[in-house]
Amino acid sequence: MSHSRTLRVDYEKTTRVLCVVGSELNVNLNRTAPLSSRFFSVKCTSSVQYRINPPPQETSHLSPIPLSDNSVLVISMKHASQYENDSKLSVQYYGEKKDVLGRAVLHLTAVEISLDVDADRDGIVEHNNPDKGSWKWGPDGHGAILLVNCDSERTYLKKPDHEQTSITRVSDLKDMSVMVLRTKGPAKLPEGYKLTMHISQGDAESVRVFRTRSPGVMNNSISYTLFNAFVRDFPLVLSSEVLSQEVPYLGGEAEMNFYVEGLRFPDRDFDGLISINLSLLEPIGEALPETPIFTDKVMLRVAPWIMTPNTLQPLEVFVCSTSDNYTFLNGMRNLVAKSGYKLNICHEYMNRGDRWMQDELEFGYIDSPHQRFPVVLDSPRDGKLQNFPYEELLGPNFGYVTRTAENEEVSSLDSFGNLEVSPPVTVNGKKYPLGRIIIGVAFPTATKGRNMTKVVQEFLFAQKVQEPVALFSDWLLVGHVDEFMTFVPASDRKGFRLLLASPDAGYKLFRGLQNDGHGQAKMFDGLKDEEQITVDEILNDEILQSHNNYVQSCIDWNRDVLKRELGLDDDDIIDMPILFKLVEEMGSESRAVAYYPDMVNMIVLGKNLGIPKPFGPKVNGRCALEAEMCSLLEGLGLRCTFIDDFASYHKLLGEVHCGSNVRRQPFDFKWWNLEM
Amino acid sequence: MSHSRTLRVDYEKTTRVLCVVGSELNVNLNRTAPLSSRFFSVKCTSSVQYRINPPPQETSHLSPIPLSDNSVLVISMKHASQYENDSKLSVQYYGEKKDVLGRAVLHLTAVEISLDVDADRDGIVEHNNPDKGSWKWGPDGHGAILLVNCDSERTYLKKPDHEQTSITRVSDLKDMSVMVLRTKGPAKLPEGYKLTMHISQGDAESVRVFRTRSPGVMNNSISYTLFNAFVRDFPLVLSSEVLSQEVPYLGGEAEMNFYVEGLRFPDRDFDGLISINLSLLEPIGEALPETPIFTDKVMLRVAPWIMTPNTLQPLEVFVCSTSDNYTFLNGMRNLVAKSGYKLNICHEYMNRGDRWMQDELEFGYIDSPHQRFPVVLDSPRDGKLQNFPYEELLGPNFGYVTRTAENEEVSSLDSFGNLEVSPPVTVNGKKYPLGRIIIGVAFPTATKGRNMTKVVQEFLFAQKVQEPVALFSDWLLVGHVDEFMTFVPASDRKGFRLLLASPDAGYKLFRGLQNDGHGQAKMFDGLKDEEQITVDEILNDEILQSHNNYVQSCIDWNRDVLKRELGLDDDDIIDMPILFKLVEEMGSESRAVAYYPDMVNMIVLGKNLGIPKPFGPKVNGRCALEAEMCSLLEGLGLRCTFIDDFASYHKLLGEVHCGSNVRRQPFDFKWWNLEM
Repeated sequence: MSHSRTLRVDYEKTTRVLCVVGSELNVNLNRTAPLSSRFFSVKCTSSVQYRINPPPQETSHLSPIPLSDNSVLVISMKHASQYENDSKLSVQYYGEKKDVLGRAVLHLTAVEISLDVDADRDGIVEHNNPDKGSWKWGPDGHGAILLVNCDSERTYLKKPDHEQTSITRVSDLKDMSVMVLRTKGPAKLPEGYKLTMHISQGDAESVRVFRTRSPGVMNNSISYTLFNAFVRDFPLVLSSEVLSQEVPYLGGEAEMNFYVEGLRFPDRDFDGLISINLSLLEPIGEALPETPIFTDKVMLRVAPWIMTPNTLQPLEVFVCSTSDNYTFLNGMRNLVAKSGYKLNICHEYMNRGDRWMQDELEFGYIDSPHQRFPVVLDSPRDGKLQNFPYEELLGPNFGYVTRTAENEEVSSLDSFGNLEVSPPVTVNGKKYPLGRIIIGVAFPTATKGRNMTKVVQEFLFAQKVQEPVALFSDWLLVGHVDEFMTFVPASDRKGFRLLLASPDAGYKLFRGLQNDGHGQAKMFDGLKDEEQITVDEILNDEILQSHNNYVQSCIDWNRDVLKRELGLDDDDIIDMPILFKLVEEMGSESRAVAYYPDMVNMIVLGKNLGIPKPFGPKVNGRCALEAEMCSLLEGLGLRCTFIDDFASYHKLLGEVHCGSNVRRQPFDFKWWNLEM
Repeated sequence: MSHSRTLRVDYEKTTRVLCVVGSELNVNLNRTAPLSSRFFSVKCTSSVQYRINPPPQETSHLSPIPLSDNSVLVISMKHASQYENDSKLSVQYYGEKKDVLGRAVLHLTAVEISLDVDADRDGIVEHNNPDKGSWKWGPDGHGAILLVNCDSERTYLKKPDHEQTSITRVSDLKDMSVMVLRTKGPAKLPEGYKLTMHISQGDAESVRVFRTRSPGVMNNSISYTLFNAFVRDFPLVLSSEVLSQEVPYLGGEAEMNFYVEGLRFPDRDFDGLISINLSLLEPIGEALPETPIFTDKVMLRVAPWIMTPNTLQPLEVFVCSTSDNYTFLNGMRNLVAKSGYKLNICHEYMNRGDRWMQDELEFGYIDSPHQRFPVVLDSPRDGKLQNFPYEELLGPNFGYVTRTAENEEVSSLDSFGNLEVSPPVTVNGKKYPLGRIIIGVAFPTATKGRNMTKVVQEFLFAQKVQEPVALFSDWLLVGHVDEFMTFVPASDRKGFRLLLASPDAGYKLFRGLQNDGHGQAKMFDGLKDEEQITVDEILNDEILQSHNNYVQSCIDWNRDVLKRELGLDDDDIIDMPILFKLVEEMGSESRAVAYYPDMVNMIVLGKNLGIPKPFGPKVNGRCALEAEMCSLLEGLGLRCTFIDDFASYHKLLGEVHCGSNVRRQPFDFKWWNLEM
């Protein structure tokens, strides 16, 4: 019994008291006993249980018990009362000679009160889970889950639902966690008693609570109430404006449904946990605050935003249509159709010429036992595509979240081509069943250089379930991790391979061509606006070689970090033959761009890969780079499709991956089952 | 070996490489091997160790090893080099017929680098503790400790040392954590290599690093360098302005001392942990960032601010002198002298008539293996005593911290009579060896009412080691927990008793007096400006009785919380006979004040208690309230001294405790040994 309450009892008076089933009342018997009392006895109706502390020495059943300085009578009741004051207890006090000195009488009313949530995470609000007041990670964990209500039920004049303080559509209730107040007792509470729900000031920034106006029904299923769409009226109970509010006591055996709405994601200053309390208040007197005599508490955790790696099943592919990307679009259309997924084209009125679909947004999702939906993270990049996530994606069961850089400079590293996620990995025994987020930054040692904004990094770290790994991407002109790495599914080993761009692998391939007599084969063959260059010329360019040695060392640095932080062996990594070149920016460091289409910047749709067509030197009519890619990847059961993105993407310093985005199936693994 | 680095090696070239002892270099042999290489062999000087992955099949010692796609040569060195490039390794490549195709040569220089802190918490900076990069609580824990440098070495124009960005006195070094950079190797690093120390942007808000300009000496003792006061020049290395800076490599076997200064206490947005990194940078080329090829990391935790309960040994007592408190001051002077402690009197020029020494400040301390000093927490109350903590207490080895309410109203609940701490307790098996902080607030269910400011509450919770308990104190007009509770030492049970004001105990005592024929004995006997009132009159006052029933219920509510949160039994609590009365404020709730001097508001100096003189009814010439207090407390070995605070404190709604403060001996228990 966790609830224990001290009760004052005056003799020669009848004290009326409300007792919550499951709690105890402690009466210090000596405190208000008649003077010179030496003994006492207790009588009660069968509905009342009591014991005496310290337990009295053996006495005959009926003889009075000696009263000591610290005699405490502990009273409890097992069942709710049907009527007010239907249970009684009396204490009789005796003097030295067992003469009766006085009698204290208690009239008791018992109620059952339980504030309930889905603490065992099965989608059903169980009754009075003993662990409901705390939160624990893992398959043997407990504690309810809450979603940030970041989708928009409205499609006209829409905004994320949590930005409005009322419920206008019943469908919105599905995005909230049901909380049930279960009560049992007489038709009404004794005069002046009331129930109050309350939250702390800190938690009120992150949560809002509504309730149903109509009485609940005796049914454990959430869905029952949800689909009874007659319920149109949901008063706001708790918010940052109202931290405490009375809630009705319905009488008899009753349930009242509450709906808990998350307002913000975990972040630097918010660990995601919130508590909601329900107290029974006792009236004291005019101009005196009512005393909470019983408090029940539930704890919920706001679901984190979760990213989806390339190894998860695609659902939809997004690309932009521009005035100049017909060839690319055609290639993508064919690939997506062949793969059997849905292609969404963002048209020019919306993209305003901004083709970098990967960079403006990242698809993720939020998940709970009762609801799950995709949530787009909108980048602070804010190019001409900036309205797309809000205008086109936000909607019913499609959430939206963004972070705005206040006093920080936004750089190219804030584009989400620089935000990826690994497949599930295990690192030195530590499991990451949802993978790890990967971002690109400057060297931690750099005294200058570009970085991902602090607001976005703090958001990503605070989600906790895909602990981020920071790579060095500032060596690239554009500065995105997707320019040198990607993950592809594989049926063996860890279920995937890490593909890394490798100038060394590129040079090895070109030297092989030269050695086999193809030194005069031409790079960029067939591209009419591009100057062609022979294998021999490439291999003779010592500056290009030294630039690529540098690039290889940058990628190797990242390779070492990835091996360590993702627990990878060399056999989990495949080097892709890709050359880079350095370009000097005005007054800045030299930075790298791909020398020919950067094949690692691919789109991964199940086993189908959409790879930038490299336009490499041809051997017997076949592009040697394409042939090498196929030979490296087809052994894993992957199918390579080369997409011509040369004019409309590669020349603008991006490729297939930069120009597309994929919404994927969420993980089967539930984030709350993580061992943290 | 946690550090593993991929190294590019070109054949037909000599590669010069710097290798850190304890790390590994991985050479992907196939990557840049001559075309059609099929075998390889490795030779090296005795200073170099290598192995091959995957391990080659058994071959004769001298015959070349087959080269596979993923052959990796793993190189390491056990000892620092004396000279640059004094170690060599070569790889020879062979064709199908074991014909030599090429040879890659490595010239190696080994250095030892270790950034060290006192990770085992013994006051000495040990060498390369394997756990130095993480932090763990408990007696088997690890991780270094950092103090907020919040004292002031200067006494003239003083301010907390962490508010200035330079070290002007050698004594200030004692307040910082020593960090040692230990290096061993050739006289200088190869051309272009350098060492850089760096911290993250987030950590830079909380920490500053200085170094000594003169080379260190080969000595493990912190004190050696500290007291060599010749060292006068300590350049700033890292701060919020400079996140990364080169540090000198001294050559040979060398140590350089760094001094780490904490800038802020743990708070809502700061968990107290910070990391400092030391990287070795490799030059790459002009206009290219240097690559960190090795990074060593240490982690430190900022020491929390710790309060001292009444059970700890007093060191100094503080009171105010005012124009009207001679009687009180005299009583205190006698008590403190008798107890053998130091009395500090804050004079009128400083207190400007504000006598509430308890309310303006709270004494605490910060502790680390290398340094410990008292720190005063200055309340946002800011009465006329407001300059006292800064002006009179802040000084060498006396720290100062405050919290300022920005957008919050400061109320009487922000006075530190409303901030106390329990002695060490164990609650359901969970140990609190530093006790638990106790604060007073409004009921969590209250829709109005006063509270302690959020900034102070967040500060207190963030210290973590004395997890706070919130009581209900808003029922009192002044609203401080010290008006109804205190702790006194006891040699039995849990080492202390909780004393609670109890109107029920008061009434019981008065009824006993009446019963024994002393109904006409007078309260306030001997006070010439006070209307006297008989025991009979008090007992006949039904309104007073009902007010006190309410007060008892408020205290009982707190009693239940204290029992639960401190793991107390009824036998750990003693009820003190104290009556209250309710006063109505304009347009507000009725709130309580003590009816006669509130004896629980006492000063505890070891076994000597300074108790407000109650001026109770006399029986046989002796005050019955004093007699009862003595009988309740002397059995515990405590000595009661009653101090007349009636006119100058009680009438102004405070008592002895409100008008005094005690700085106490810190705990023997070290906070980092807590199991969290």
